[in-house]
Amino acid sequence: MVQIKPFNVEQWMDKYETTATHNLAESCSDSLSLNALLSLGGHTLSNLPFPFSSIPLTYGHIRGSPEFRQNVAALYPPQSSNDGLLPALPAENVLITPGAIAANFLVFYTLVGAGDHVIVMTPTYQQLHSVPASLGAEVEEWKLRPEEGFKADVEVLREMVRKPGSDGKGGTKLIVITNPNNPTGVIHPTAALKEIVSIAQSCGNVPILSDEVYRPLFHNPDIPAPASILDIYSHGIATGSLSKAYALAGIRVGWVAARQSRVIQACATARDYNTICVSMLDDAVAAYALSKGIVEKLLERNVALCKRNWSIVDRFFGSGGGIDGVRFKTSYTRSSGGTILFVRLTDRDGVPIDDKSFCHDLHTRTGVLLVPGGFCFGSEFKGYLRMGYACNTKVLEEGLEKIRNFLKEF
Amino acid sequence: MVQIKPFNVEQWMDKYETTATHNLAESCSDSLSLNALLSLGGHTLSNLPFPFSSIPLTYGHIRGSPEFRQNVAALYPPQSSNDGLLPALPAENVLITPGAIAANFLVFYTLVGAGDHVIVMTPTYQQLHSVPASLGAEVEEWKLRPEEGFKADVEVLREMVRKPGSDGKGGTKLIVITNPNNPTGVIHPTAALKEIVSIAQSCGNVPILSDEVYRPLFHNPDIPAPASILDIYSHGIATGSLSKAYALAGIRVGWVAARQSRVIQACATARDYNTICVSMLDDAVAAYALSKGIVEKLLERNVALCKRNWSIVDRFFGSGGGIDGVRFKTSYTRSSGGTILFVRLTDRDGVPIDDKSFCHDLHTRTGVLLVPGGFCFGSEFKGYLRMGYACNTKVLEEGLEKIRNFLKEF
Repeated sequence: MVQIKPFNVEQWMDKYETTATHNLAESCSDSLSLNALLSLGGHTLSNLPFPFSSIPLTYGHIRGSPEFRQNVAALYPPQSSNDGLLPALPAENVLITPGAIAANFLVFYTLVGAGDHVIVMTPTYQQLHSVPASLGAEVEEWKLRPEEGFKADVEVLREMVRKPGSDGKGGTKLIVITNPNNPTGVIHPTAALKEIVSIAQSCGNVPILSDEVYRPLFHNPDIPAPASILDIYSHGIATGSLSKAYALAGIRVGWVAARQSRVIQACATARDYNTICVSMLDDAVAAYALSKGIVEKLLERNVALCKRNWSIVDRFFGSGGGIDGVRFKTSYTRSSGGTILFVRLTDRDGVPIDDKSFCHDLHTRTGVLLVPGGFCFGSEFKGYLRMGYACNTKVLEEGLEKIRNFLKEF
Repeated sequence: MVQIKPFNVEQWMDKYETTATHNLAESCSDSLSLNALLSLGGHTLSNLPFPFSSIPLTYGHIRGSPEFRQNVAALYPPQSSNDGLLPALPAENVLITPGAIAANFLVFYTLVGAGDHVIVMTPTYQQLHSVPASLGAEVEEWKLRPEEGFKADVEVLREMVRKPGSDGKGGTKLIVITNPNNPTGVIHPTAALKEIVSIAQSCGNVPILSDEVYRPLFHNPDIPAPASILDIYSHGIATGSLSKAYALAGIRVGWVAARQSRVIQACATARDYNTICVSMLDDAVAAYALSKGIVEKLLERNVALCKRNWSIVDRFFGSGGGIDGVRFKTSYTRSSGGTILFVRLTDRDGVPIDDKSFCHDLHTRTGVLLVPGGFCFGSEFKGYLRMGYACNTKVLEEGLEKIRNFLKEF
């Protein structure tokens, strides 16, 4: 058996989410039904603008349909960058996968081998460090710190990254970042990304994998939307999906997009061994969701939902001061992108709560589900809770009141 | 980059299949549309007997919906076996994956590590030996020979398999078989399977992974349907999907089913790192396809299609004698299960054709696509062609005539 640790956040969700009445652990935007999606374009199941129920369910287009790949490529328009002007991304540089989780896995399985040096920005989605470790890589964590607002301290990265030797070997194989970040909801701005790219360039163009699954849910009016890694680096690799920002987790489609065609070709070669293709039904729905006229409405809905719900959450947690009527203190960095907040609860003496037993008891007694931060993202995050706030607003408001009442008796 | 070779058969299909007019390379039963599937139960898209377009597209049930898992479990009824009576498979012992290819990959990623000894029956689907090799395993091929009708010579296996030492280490980690076989269409009968199981048992219950993706397409009235590995071995692991036997390749659902709950648990732990869940749309369609009253009609259609088309193919190839009107000789073992035939073409002097250039030229000049056997299944199969015959009967008949005319001028 390969040495892979349990994926705590996924196991936590699997264990509790079907019995939660108020799921505030979920990190997806409030999921749409197929009918609700179609209604954005004035369509119904009996009036579909794309082939769906009448086409034979073959494997179809192995790398994803041309329409879907083109619509994904359109998310990466031409940009001026560290590397000069980067043109619009060709559809050929997009490879469709069954979800962003499969996209990330594929990049590791393709690019990382035993002994390779991989730097992973943490805290993050556990997959991003556990999978390269399971493949035998030497994984080094680039730890972001709460006391610095989870900002990317590029000087730490500069110390960590390795140049290849004169034989071309021994250099860092891959740098992995998440933007917007999971679990903190923090955005790494374009200026910071450009510094990261400069460091990667100075070490022989180390590829940067950027998990951008929460992109483009940017809802803090004080912070400009950051660049995609594909906008600023010719050795950038971005992964994404329709689960978080597009509210369609139930269709399993994601993508690897890369500036280097040979990276896509290598991923396609490896992908032949675990995928063949994605669902033809999902591909058709996804192409529709990302089509012109629909994608704008979809994002407008979800950004508005995040903005509205964030203000409710921020008010509830007293903007980091404390929760009205209870004795616990709260601290967090503002979540500016994506759907999640990483909040620390301490008692009057500054002692953090036991996040795992807290979340377990909260679920048992109230039906509200949260993700325990210390248990799922590393012991240095004891007392932290990850809350997804892009659910239905009423569910959020009810869930928060239940948390308040629970805390009063805690 | 991991050391993984190009997956020749998948790359071949990807390169040629969208431009083929007569795709006789395809190994799926003639794919149904959603409408055609629904019509088997007298349903339509506006009259669906399951929730589909109105449910929010969340991740849903992480391991697959209870209905779908139960319907898969029902494919493995109680059996008396080498290990005594094996009860009906519980739904908990089924784990849903995005296709059988993902199921096989998951079993390897979960059970096989660097240095492990893995025995793989060949010729077979390339994934089954290339993936464990890419994970660092010592892969030994158990080669089946055309001159023996591709029968499983268990004495060869007996010599190959390794008992664990006194420290419990060094034993064979996994035995991998394919039944019905790809690319030969040969069935390994229950008696042979029981001998394989005995050998595995004598070496400390080595798990046997049986890729049963072509099951239960048994269409040779002279050969009884063989057991599933789950019917006869408590350490058996079976993989399957809806692509081949159920004519629904475009929905990406497959499964790992195992008698040992801990194997399913270990696979579920590893699966958290590359899957989360399958498409909610696909899951609903798949549960319907395998439901009582539908699954029987689906199999009846596909078995009848295989039976009818096999007789056309067998007549065309002169039952292994030669093709009427052309100078080439043919030889093959009867395809008794699944959808594919592995046929060798030689000229009058007994020299095999160059399968790769033959298939390339055939496609270019006639639009007929076949899979070159030597190129895709190993150089010892020079001159072999893999033909899928479970396509639409008219396409098959036209394609065969085009092959005849091509051969006349070859």
